[in-house]
Amino acid sequence: MKIGYQGTDGAYSHIASQILSPNSSYIGFYDFFDAFAALNQQTVDKIVIPIENSYAGRVADVHRLIAKNNIYFEAEYILKIQHQLLANHATKPQDITEILSHEQAIMQCQDNLKRIFATTTPKLIPVNDTADAAKRLMQSNNTTSAVIASSLSAKIYNLQIIHPDIQDAQDNFTNFILMSKKPSNHPFQNNKNYITSLIFAIDNKSGGLAKILNILCDHNIDLLKIESYIPGGVKSHKAEFFISCSGHTQDPNLSIAMPKLHASCLDVKLFGSYLADEKRL
Amino acid sequence: MKIGYQGTDGAYSHIASQILSPNSSYIGFYDFFDAFAALNQQTVDKIVIPIENSYAGRVADVHRLIAKNNIYFEAEYILKIQHQLLANHATKPQDITEILSHEQAIMQCQDNLKRIFATTTPKLIPVNDTADAAKRLMQSNNTTSAVIASSLSAKIYNLQIIHPDIQDAQDNFTNFILMSKKPSNHPFQNNKNYITSLIFAIDNKSGGLAKILNILCDHNIDLLKIESYIPGGVKSHKAEFFISCSGHTQDPNLSIAMPKLHASCLDVKLFGSYLADEKRL
Repeated sequence: MKIGYQGTDGAYSHIASQILSPNSSYIGFYDFFDAFAALNQQTVDKIVIPIENSYAGRVADVHRLIAKNNIYFEAEYILKIQHQLLANHATKPQDITEILSHEQAIMQCQDNLKRIFATTTPKLIPVNDTADAAKRLMQSNNTTSAVIASSLSAKIYNLQIIHPDIQDAQDNFTNFILMSKKPSNHPFQNNKNYITSLIFAIDNKSGGLAKILNILCDHNIDLLKIESYIPGGVKSHKAEFFISCSGHTQDPNLSIAMPKLHASCLDVKLFGSYLADEKRL
Repeated sequence: MKIGYQGTDGAYSHIASQILSPNSSYIGFYDFFDAFAALNQQTVDKIVIPIENSYAGRVADVHRLIAKNNIYFEAEYILKIQHQLLANHATKPQDITEILSHEQAIMQCQDNLKRIFATTTPKLIPVNDTADAAKRLMQSNNTTSAVIASSLSAKIYNLQIIHPDIQDAQDNFTNFILMSKKPSNHPFQNNKNYITSLIFAIDNKSGGLAKILNILCDHNIDLLKIESYIPGGVKSHKAEFFISCSGHTQDPNLSIAMPKLHASCLDVKLFGSYLADEKRL
């Protein structure tokens, strides 16, 4: 199995790919567009894409890309984001004068960095990619620079972990989805917990969303995630919502609610029913 | 009036700052944390912060920061994102071998770039900041590089616009908010359109959100934006929602709905009522 993801070897998406599809080969792509294009052209079998971060919200462009590319969801994995401070093996902590990483990673570690480097205060340098920063550091043999990246990056690029788990918040999670061009057709089993994700469109008028949520509520379906977006800009007559809810389209609740949803919406785009990550339970 | 924003001179946030608070002085900060810290320490009077992009969704960390810092919303401005291809004045279009910009900006222009540079295919280089790329280009006097940045960047850094408006999508908008430490207290006027933004928390259980939306619906309040997030991670007993809805807390509808909302929620954090950007009308 060939799995595509966005990023460089060692990226958090690469970690999620290894967990969601073990014993596969993994191919990093420059951006989300290229990863989706590879799936469309079948140069990869599946892709692993982050759809939401507990801090940063929806991941850029992904909702639009999944809707446009007829993608189905096969599985989810909720990865706890753990940032490591990495350096070449000859580097001494007191010699570090600069730390490179993605701006988001720098932000997510700033309290710990201030504490760790209280006296030496290295320069913080934003770069485009955490794993790429690790790769370049290895290639440079530089002993005064460090990077913030994943533990997988440390392993791939043979860097030492100067400080482990330097992220300030311990509740920073990213939700990754294994996506495929075919509906997953996981048959419903009574003793398992499923999630169903979909985008629905309704007329952009008062009370429209409440009506839909009442249908879910009437059938004991839990809403796990909702986000509105208006595809044609702020003046659109159509409102769209991405939701993830509890249940499987073949279970007793959702199988009755789905036809009611279809009847009440302009459009429903179903991404499929898949097993919930056990971290949710 | 001193206005803080995140970014470098010429950033899209800088443009929004000039529109939301004309005739002020503007100060760019390295990240959102620094901009909020400056407001807390009163080194700036107000800040202008993007809260949502029509493509990329919620802006990283902002919901968390506004809740934590007791911030109030004073006004909104919906900026159409227009990317310009900029170069030094001596640069000839056919000599361009590389184009630098933020990864998002590169992605948002890729179809047009392929069309414009069909034969020469310059290298696309992701950097951390569009306006900073423009500044460095000016300083370098390089005549084979171009950058993708705003028209304000062209003006500030004296660069020529090689190709105007090269964004692929014409419906790419970012919603900026003028934020202050004091509630805005815009008195309600009958002939104006207002938005009210708030975060509310409810028990993380079935039907909770539907109940709240039914209150809004019963009082003819339009939902303009909703996003769920679970502050303590996926297992939290509490669910939080950021919403923007039509109306003013002093108008006939919302003034009756607000006490009902308070009664049905664990917590309501009100950011204020402010004039709707006329692009919404």
